Amino acid sequence: MKRLVECVPNFSEGRRREVVDAIAAAIAAVPEAKVLDIEMDADHNRSVITFIVTPERAVEAAFAGARKAVELIDMEKHRGEHPRLGAMDVCPFVPTFGVTMEEAVAMARSLGERIGKELQVPVYYYEAAATRPERKNLPDVRKGEYEGLKAEIATNPERKPDAGPAVMHPTAGAFVIGARPPLIAFNVNLATSDLHLAKQIAKAVRERDGGLPAVRALGMDLRDRGIVQVSMNLVDYTRTPPHVAFLAVKAEAAKRGVEIVGSEIVGLLPLAAVVAAMEGMLAVEKFAVDQILETRLWE
Amino acid sequence: MKRLVECVPNFSEGRRREVVDAIAAAIAAVPEAKVLDIEMDADHNRSVITFIVTPERAVEAAFAGARKAVELIDMEKHRGEHPRLGAMDVCPFVPTFGVTMEEAVAMARSLGERIGKELQVPVYYYEAAATRPERKNLPDVRKGEYEGLKAEIATNPERKPDAGPAVMHPTAGAFVIGARPPLIAFNVNLATSDLHLAKQIAKAVRERDGGLPAVRALGMDLRDRGIVQVSMNLVDYTRTPPHVAFLAVKAEAAKRGVEIVGSEIVGLLPLAAVVAAMEGMLAVEKFAVDQILETRLWE
Repeated sequence: MKRLVECVPNFSEGRRREVVDAIAAAIAAVPEAKVLDIEMDADHNRSVITFIVTPERAVEAAFAGARKAVELIDMEKHRGEHPRLGAMDVCPFVPTFGVTMEEAVAMARSLGERIGKELQVPVYYYEAAATRPERKNLPDVRKGEYEGLKAEIATNPERKPDAGPAVMHPTAGAFVIGARPPLIAFNVNLATSDLHLAKQIAKAVRERDGGLPAVRALGMDLRDRGIVQVSMNLVDYTRTPPHVAFLAVKAEAAKRGVEIVGSEIVGLLPLAAVVAAMEGMLAVEKFAVDQILETRLWE
Repeated sequence: MKRLVECVPNFSEGRRREVVDAIAAAIAAVPEAKVLDIEMDADHNRSVITFIVTPERAVEAAFAGARKAVELIDMEKHRGEHPRLGAMDVCPFVPTFGVTMEEAVAMARSLGERIGKELQVPVYYYEAAATRPERKNLPDVRKGEYEGLKAEIATNPERKPDAGPAVMHPTAGAFVIGARPPLIAFNVNLATSDLHLAKQIAKAVRERDGGLPAVRALGMDLRDRGIVQVSMNLVDYTRTPPHVAFLAVKAEAAKRGVEIVGSEIVGLLPLAAVVAAMEGMLAVEKFAVDQILETRLWE
């Protein structure tokens, strides 16, 4: 089976379609890279490009996007609601089947080195690629945004970049590069219209309040359907996969006398999470992904 | 995602490695065909070649194997324990993701026409490709074997082939070609050493005794582990997928006060069955296979 990395760079341009298209085209021009999705947000003045690529070409493809962004985006003129530090504001590598987090971290660091050296842009590593605990979370790294960081990057040792010059690029700012597991958006619908109850269950299962690791959860009202939902982001499915989150919500609902009416997976998820659901729910003792017939032509 | 057909032709040669290798090589020489497995059995004097191929190339690849078998196998000299009619004794097309059973039947018929015409071999269609109910089951079609069919093919109207001449090929005999769903070998292990109990549960879940459709089941002793097993063949996972069989065994075991210790999937299964397990067990409301990240590079 072909090994793949997902890469989800965010760029500080959400209004000029031709700029975003040019960045996506630069990425797609790298062999073995395939752009899956482009989302632009005019209010945030920001876009997100999702692509998949083999590990061998991952750094090259992300670098092609970064270089084009440096060429076309001017942070001195950028305004938008979303916090940002630079032209390629954030770039996470997301391992999928057969790729380890260690490899994804190595890609992030290699990309950062290259960007620092060849494009003269300061780079910070975040999430699994972070070099110190206080840089793990993106909001901490992005503190003060472009304007704030510009004022102190050269003088405040705490803001010294991990790679590249300790001075803002005059137009492209600074980039944040890292590695993280794929995020799975997973919602479980309850046979009740009681929003309070959905909120209670969300609280019981989410990590912040002592629930499952790597689970974020909120109670939501689905007015059209007259029911409520526990809306979850599973930020590390290797720690809490969808079926474990499902069982936890189901158990909490049962405690309160409420049944599950269904669930939804929004957007993409890795094959490993689908396989984990089968293995977990059917107590499968040994299973290799290449037992799935279709993976055999994937090489 | 790439559409694929699995094809599992059986050949009446299980002793001469070079013959079986030559047949496999003829199949693998067709573009987009990939041989996954070759199994030879000397006692049966029979071999099974498993390959996957795109729908566009499926008939061509199977025909390449058939032609080589006609060239190299002489049924007049063939002896073996396994029932057989011809050199390529049986050839089922098995649809996998994105391919319908109707398409697989069309492939079987197209292959049969071509073999009848170009190789002058009589062909019978079986399973989903059968032209009449009494030809649906392979043992019925193969009645009398090579020698018996040879004696009556020209004179008994009930044995008139579906394609090709109504006379045996002088060395290759007759071929049976068809379409069927993939078979999933799925075993569920019970927390008991009571074989009688496993047999009772097998009886309760299998189609033959009024249980689940398209399920064959036996009770088996796993002496090494001191437990017993319900060993199942799911012959049409679109009618009874693994998770439904699992839940049925679990319910029958629970009735008898016994727990499940685990399950096993032996060999290959289609991605659709893995997805069905997740959908069924987590009550997923809407799901498309292309939400699985890895399928995106499968095109």
